[in-house]
Amino acid sequence: MTAKIIDGRKIAEIIKKEASNELEKLYTKYNIKANITTIKIGNNPSSDLYLKLRDKACKEIGILSNHLEFSDDVTEREIIRSIKKLNSDERIHGILLQFPIPDHISANKLFKTIDSNKDIEGLNPYNIGKTLIGDNSIIPCTPLAVLKILEYEKEKIEGKNIVIINHSNIVGKPLAILLLNRNATTSICHIFTKNLKDYTIKADILITAIGIPNMITKDFVKEGSFIIDVGISKNKNGITGDVDFNSVKDKINKITPVPGGVGPITVACSIKNMIQTYRNLLELKNY
Amino acid sequence: MTAKIIDGRKIAEIIKKEASNELEKLYTKYNIKANITTIKIGNNPSSDLYLKLRDKACKEIGILSNHLEFSDDVTEREIIRSIKKLNSDERIHGILLQFPIPDHISANKLFKTIDSNKDIEGLNPYNIGKTLIGDNSIIPCTPLAVLKILEYEKEKIEGKNIVIINHSNIVGKPLAILLLNRNATTSICHIFTKNLKDYTIKADILITAIGIPNMITKDFVKEGSFIIDVGISKNKNGITGDVDFNSVKDKINKITPVPGGVGPITVACSIKNMIQTYRNLLELKNY
Repeated sequence: MTAKIIDGRKIAEIIKKEASNELEKLYTKYNIKANITTIKIGNNPSSDLYLKLRDKACKEIGILSNHLEFSDDVTEREIIRSIKKLNSDERIHGILLQFPIPDHISANKLFKTIDSNKDIEGLNPYNIGKTLIGDNSIIPCTPLAVLKILEYEKEKIEGKNIVIINHSNIVGKPLAILLLNRNATTSICHIFTKNLKDYTIKADILITAIGIPNMITKDFVKEGSFIIDVGISKNKNGITGDVDFNSVKDKINKITPVPGGVGPITVACSIKNMIQTYRNLLELKNY
Repeated sequence: MTAKIIDGRKIAEIIKKEASNELEKLYTKYNIKANITTIKIGNNPSSDLYLKLRDKACKEIGILSNHLEFSDDVTEREIIRSIKKLNSDERIHGILLQFPIPDHISANKLFKTIDSNKDIEGLNPYNIGKTLIGDNSIIPCTPLAVLKILEYEKEKIEGKNIVIINHSNIVGKPLAILLLNRNATTSICHIFTKNLKDYTIKADILITAIGIPNMITKDFVKEGSFIIDVGISKNKNGITGDVDFNSVKDKINKITPVPGGVGPITVACSIKNMIQTYRNLLELKNY
């Protein structure tokens, strides 16, 4: 039997619909439009693509979305000054930092500067720390997208063997924590892992965010497993994930495609987080 | 060949000596005595043991250490009020919450209340979040003790297969993050893990914090591996770890004993963290 291909766009629509309903309720109550700002540094084509998709989604559901754009040679100090202005601007409900950012700027410093109540990405240390201790927090968008896929597919997490290939601050580490909070046995592999197949072959759920096209073939995967492909690579035919679909399709049970899998759900989760920061601030003001 | 038994007390002495030198320098510069407060709730005998050991260590190196003791039926609100008072008390440089605490009190709420600059345990969300993103932070004492053991044994971490048995907020989760920050392939197992041996048998380094005496026998461990036993169980003969030493001793390479392994190093690391909070506050005041 061929694997079920998860329709990421459909899940994204459900999340956006829920977000839109929530937004409408809040707007009715407070009569203030949600207003978010994205900071974009340099000219990366994948940034432009994400921004375009997000702006479109914001427009559809009625969130005001504007950009602060900086050239590649902007100083860290200048970005920090802009973030502080956005922090203290009462009209702004959320701040988003578009990745990638140039090497001379520390992502950690920027995330520490973003007000934890306006932190759409959930990557301010206070928010990520709340995620670690299992406290209600803003969850980083890509890990949240993975959780949403498992939730909509009614996949049990507790006791499952889950393998993540990625140990970044934005994807692998927070995702591992979120899965541990749900009692999965969790292994985190990465570029320094010596025996990757030994891990992946036992994964009931394999989450891959490598960025090497078609690297994961059938000898990497467990019979009947669920694969979530977070990888995005560009080639002449468009974008490709980490998984060689044709190789694995008769061995596994479910898979998210690239494009049309994790990507649109991540955009929807960023909308969901925008509404969470907007609600936080409205409720804070009200008390 | 029989496994090398790591002398935890010796490593603890080295850490305390370093801490003592640091303390002396800071005292010479600022002429203020380091002063920390431990909050203890209820009457748990293991709390009393830890407190006694810590007080002794504090006295040895010249840290003023006092306790706020509460009965088991104290309200959460009352503890939070006390923490807030300690936060704003300029004479206090560090706050420690002695575990276990009664079930009706939320550890997360208390850790969120402790000023991140006075947080000796490194468990305030802001500090734990900084640990996650790889930023310089106060590291929780038990995970720090494990890192210190690996450091003093000159054990390479990058690329190693490391298995942790524990996924608590205090031990397993922060330790996993710290090992990922050092590029270990890291698996986290726990009570919901179905095939524990499949994981442990491949661990170059096995860190176990289960609390079941002698559970880890030779069929759980890899030939030539390094075992760090964080488990503490009490029985009529004193305290015991998770590892059946006689069973594993001819198969593995190194092991930390119980008692005399991780325990004294954890106490030394809490002294080290006290001095870090003391320095934070003195330096903050000075700027």
